[in-house]
Amino acid sequence: MASNQNISMAVIRRLPKYHRYLRELLDKDVKRISSKELSEIIGFTASQIRQDLNNFGGFGQQGYGYNVEDLYNEIGKILGLTKNYNTIIVGAGNLGQALANYASFGRFGFNLVGIFDINPKLIGLKINNVEVRDMDELKAFASETPVDIAYICTSRSGAQDVADALMECKIKAVWNFAPVDLKVDDDVIVENVHLIDNLLTLTYFVKEQ
Amino acid sequence: MASNQNISMAVIRRLPKYHRYLRELLDKDVKRISSKELSEIIGFTASQIRQDLNNFGGFGQQGYGYNVEDLYNEIGKILGLTKNYNTIIVGAGNLGQALANYASFGRFGFNLVGIFDINPKLIGLKINNVEVRDMDELKAFASETPVDIAYICTSRSGAQDVADALMECKIKAVWNFAPVDLKVDDDVIVENVHLIDNLLTLTYFVKEQ
Repeated sequence: MASNQNISMAVIRRLPKYHRYLRELLDKDVKRISSKELSEIIGFTASQIRQDLNNFGGFGQQGYGYNVEDLYNEIGKILGLTKNYNTIIVGAGNLGQALANYASFGRFGFNLVGIFDINPKLIGLKINNVEVRDMDELKAFASETPVDIAYICTSRSGAQDVADALMECKIKAVWNFAPVDLKVDDDVIVENVHLIDNLLTLTYFVKEQ
Repeated sequence: MASNQNISMAVIRRLPKYHRYLRELLDKDVKRISSKELSEIIGFTASQIRQDLNNFGGFGQQGYGYNVEDLYNEIGKILGLTKNYNTIIVGAGNLGQALANYASFGRFGFNLVGIFDINPKLIGLKINNVEVRDMDELKAFASETPVDIAYICTSRSGAQDVADALMECKIKAVWNFAPVDLKVDDDVIVENVHLIDNLLTLTYFVKEQ
């Protein structure tokens, strides 16, 4: 297995898509696949696929192609899917509740261990069997329960304060849904889902149509 | 104003971020800003910013910088924000309901005109004052009410059927939240939010930490 140290972000971002397509192939009981066939279903060029997968030591064999299950498992390992992750949601509004109820996350080993909000009307509510706690309890909670990833589902104005509170609790990975770019320490990883940015890309094309 | 014909996807995808930051500056009553100052808050290099904005005719003036309000309005125009968009949601589960309730969309001129599902338990429910209709009614609905953008919030297995139904109704823009890459006609624009792909990028980095 080659070192993963110098893999570009672009390659990393393509891996979940490989993982998703390989799972579909596994579901269809496909045992092996060439880079050419994979290219046809996934939409990257065959040469791109070979180059991407070579980054991780090269799983394919000339004339045989890729063993689907092995490749799926290896990419899962690279993506860190061989362990479970404790997650919390901060912000129990519509989006936070939707994410709390999103069944697919559990399948990949994401365990929702806590939900936090500052709104007294939401505190105490149970969502997908997890009680919404007061944000003031976060520090005590995180000192007892390891938290791997926090999802920020607050409004724009509240998000940076939440990020600061998460850093105080030594939580190092943030999935941010608030429409703001957070300022965090260098050892904190933020992955943004800026829904409105995404939607405005679509309007550009609708306008151009 | 230069032609927008040959603007790269990368530039288009940065525009909503410019738009978002400029709105924040406007909220703080900032009148003008240099590419250097803009660079400090937005995180792109000053040269990148000048290059991006030159694509659209160049709004800045040497020694003056950019007029914040003009630039905000121009980018809004480029992104197609000078008109309203009729939107529908297909799939009234957790995520569909969250999007239906997401107040910020209305502010940008997105009007939710319909919600559709196949689940009899959801049909008839009112979400944010919009009634969930039977998916069978989509065609009749779309023939009476113009629909600019459809949000697909179904499961993976149902999404392609929905995309096919949308194409039958001549709906040309799709915001897809289902974890699947849709097959659509060339004149249909799809913007994907693959939440799990995004989350798995995060686990890669958590694992590497």
